[in-house]
Amino acid sequence: MSPTFAQLDAGGRLRHLLTLEGLPRGLLESLLERATALAARPGHGPARGEALEGSTLVNLFAEPSTRTRASFEVAAVRLGGDVLNFDNTLSSRVKGETLLDTVHTLLAMQADFFVIRDGEAGVHERVAREVDRQAAVVSAGEAHLSHPTQGLLDAMTIREQKGDFGQLTIAIVGDIARSRVARSAHQALRTLGAREIRIVAPRAMMPEAAEFAGARRLDSLDDGIAGADVVMMLRIQHERAGSAGPVDLADYHREFGLTAARLARAAPKAIVMHPGPMNRGVEIDSDVADGPQSVIRRQVANGVATRMAVLEHLAAARRARAG
Amino acid sequence: MSPTFAQLDAGGRLRHLLTLEGLPRGLLESLLERATALAARPGHGPARGEALEGSTLVNLFAEPSTRTRASFEVAAVRLGGDVLNFDNTLSSRVKGETLLDTVHTLLAMQADFFVIRDGEAGVHERVAREVDRQAAVVSAGEAHLSHPTQGLLDAMTIREQKGDFGQLTIAIVGDIARSRVARSAHQALRTLGAREIRIVAPRAMMPEAAEFAGARRLDSLDDGIAGADVVMMLRIQHERAGSAGPVDLADYHREFGLTAARLARAAPKAIVMHPGPMNRGVEIDSDVADGPQSVIRRQVANGVATRMAVLEHLAAARRARAG
Amino acid sequence: MSPTFAQLDAGGRLRHLLTLEGLPRGLLESLLERATALAARPGHGPARGEALEGSTLVNLFAEPSTRTRASFEVAAVRLGGDVLNFDNTLSSRVKGETLLDTVHTLLAMQADFFVIRDGEAGVHERVAREVDRQAAVVSAGEAHLSHPTQGLLDAMTIREQKGDFGQLTIAIVGDIARSRVARSAHQALRTLGAREIRIVAPRAMMPEAAEFAGARRLDSLDDGIAGADVVMMLRIQHERAGSAGPVDLADYHREFGLTAARLARAAPKAIVMHPGPMNRGVEIDSDVADGPQSVIRRQVANGVATRMAVLEHLAAARRARAG
Repeated sequence: MSPTFAQLDAGGRLRHLLTLEGLPRGLLESLLERATALAARPGHGPARGEALEGSTLVNLFAEPSTRTRASFEVAAVRLGGDVLNFDNTLSSRVKGETLLDTVHTLLAMQADFFVIRDGEAGVHERVAREVDRQAAVVSAGEAHLSHPTQGLLDAMTIREQKGDFGQLTIAIVGDIARSRVARSAHQALRTLGAREIRIVAPRAMMPEAAEFAGARRLDSLDDGIAGADVVMMLRIQHERAGSAGPVDLADYHREFGLTAARLARAAPKAIVMHPGPMNRGVEIDSDVADGPQSVIRRQVANGVATRMAVLEHLAAARRARAG
Repeated sequence: MSPTFAQLDAGGRLRHLLTLEGLPRGLLESLLERATALAARPGHGPARGEALEGSTLVNLFAEPSTRTRASFEVAAVRLGGDVLNFDNTLSSRVKGETLLDTVHTLLAMQADFFVIRDGEAGVHERVAREVDRQAAVVSAGEAHLSHPTQGLLDAMTIREQKGDFGQLTIAIVGDIARSRVARSAHQALRTLGAREIRIVAPRAMMPEAAEFAGARRLDSLDDGIAGADVVMMLRIQHERAGSAGPVDLADYHREFGLTAARLARAAPKAIVMHPGPMNRGVEIDSDVADGPQSVIRRQVANGVATRMAVLEHLAAARRARAG
Repeated sequence: MSPTFAQLDAGGRLRHLLTLEGLPRGLLESLLERATALAARPGHGPARGEALEGSTLVNLFAEPSTRTRASFEVAAVRLGGDVLNFDNTLSSRVKGETLLDTVHTLLAMQADFFVIRDGEAGVHERVAREVDRQAAVVSAGEAHLSHPTQGLLDAMTIREQKGDFGQLTIAIVGDIARSRVARSAHQALRTLGAREIRIVAPRAMMPEAAEFAGARRLDSLDDGIAGADVVMMLRIQHERAGSAGPVDLADYHREFGLTAARLARAAPKAIVMHPGPMNRGVEIDSDVADGPQSVIRRQVANGVATRMAVLEHLAAARRARAG
């Protein structure tokens, strides 16, 4: 995000949510608390609300996604909103229309929320500047840079499962260099006061030195995981061509795959996380993914609650500014 | 379905609907009665209800479909439910996620109903076992094996048009070997006490001897149709490569196409059915499809009512089990 | 539309909306007035209503579209309707089903409104004849012939911005021969009494002499635009192969692109319109498209209001005929 763009309004509320970088700890904590209150409890139906009644949310996904798109759709519908889904690789892009023209078209139809996933850095901010007075933009993934609602749901899940961040050692493991999930998680966890954040990656997947300030860097999974309270595995995005060339998946599993044996090196009650979709047998073994320490499904449930909390906050902030 | 999987709960209600095989006659009759009550009457708006309010239904179709997917969507919306549509050849499957992981993702978002069409046998049961405590699975087509809501709507339409099954001779005509529609119809009609069920097919399309117990087998359309009260034509699925090689459509029409002349061999007020989509001029002529004996459009209307009845039943059964 | 097909019922209300040709001025004016009342005012949420509660609208688009499909979807949802979206290049068309069979399937599910875009002339009327007693058809674009809701929203925008049609000179500029937007605008504006309508096009894009009765023809943009109160630019549809061969876009821009310098030849407060999606730098420059005389975004907002007005009218007409 460029230094001149402010996500926060004069009252300290979010106008948009493009990145977790620079957001105050109190704001993150209040979002986490609200999401926790909204998170479904077993045996109860999902939380519902009215914060988006009369509002229209548009999903504009330039990259395919089941879980994130569905999660925003479910969150908006459960808050009473109308949802329009666009696969913007289709339709107008076929005709050569710019994304900004598509956005202005939807804005003229009085869309209130734009949920955008795009592989190009900066698109989200450009859209947010354009729609600023009338609508809010929520990033659902921006290049390798940012995936703020994923970072929030990860932080919420850690808080729910393990409590006080100040006591926790958290290992983020995998292709850190290309991971927007890792960046957003790091930003959230650092702000929330995690005791130790480790980024654990093969050297070819380690980010530049200027990034991930304050994190410990380890290029061995055995070392990286030792004594960790939280093990966040990242997805190997083998469908994207990397600068380092294609990944040999068997090699990767041998060096960086999370097996039950390796997980035993973590703290006794360590939790295992993964943003999904998983490559079973590559970055994580099935007995770990489905085992008692896994909170991977809980992350998905918390994802809906987190997105509801974010949408509620944005709606309330708009009302506050309007009146 | 494997012998160890039970669709029914201790109270004799459906937990899931994967097949009509083995369902008690009383259960089928109560579903047919409820569907008949829900079926739209000319001049009235469609029936609506509240059985799915606060519930989320997911359509997971691995094969293309207009009518079945739309029918479930309309049924769910008219009962107050929220609907998510997934074309699961896209998104996560692109990324290599397993269907079970997709299902668990949607389950974690508190989906209540999974409507699944898949060409692979056994997928539906595997999903049902996984989601059993939290959600219900309804098959919208499984390989060549089962299409239970189609079987129910066919039985409902026959009952509505012709009354007492014990008086009826019903001919099912076409590519029986590969037809899930034929199998589900046969299961329903046999349980409901149809006097005579005939399967009528060219030898290459006749199922194995162990299947379609109790049905008469005829390999001539003229013989198969003679005196029948109900003529159910099947679709020639020429887009699928058959074991017998491609079908010559002109040959097929000559031997097994339903023409007005041939229909005259059936009982005087025989009804003509087809599950759609039709290949006009192949398995059925347009003057028959659109003629006075055709109830093909009524089948579609009854399809919505049948799916509403099934969803209502599943929702009521869940509430009964919950407490 | 064939001479034997009547869009209007005995009470002078629309049964369907396939074309603006031949519609009475009073009817157009009442639709424009209602749309104006529904059009969103800055600072207010969008207008909502209940005219479509309990109704189902189906979007059947055989050509890709973001704005028109979304506009109808938003209009229907804001009137309380349920919406089904079909990309009918997929699903049943894969299986060879005819469009009429698809329509009858959806009709049997009690769809009330069919919104159809198709590149083939006559499809809309054929569907309207089939569904006439039970449902209404609204054209969302028919070949090069008709796009009636676009014509209405254009007329509404001109009326809103410039007032009395009898005082106005309106230039329609671009590939007139292939433009359904131009035809529907011409029909509306002529009926509404525009003082002067000009069609401005390179000779290769000029329609046959029998068309656009009463319009002045000019093959120079400088002449065509001189003194005009309204400049309606058309999209160059370079993705369609034209009879005149591919268009050289740089040539086109030189001869027929709307630049700020050229716009200065129009009347001092002339408004600039475009149906979207725009080819910036081809038929229109960005500084004009985004400049103070542009009402392009207002057209989009008015599009939703226009479609709401049309759907309300059709729903009321159905109720009136039903008794």
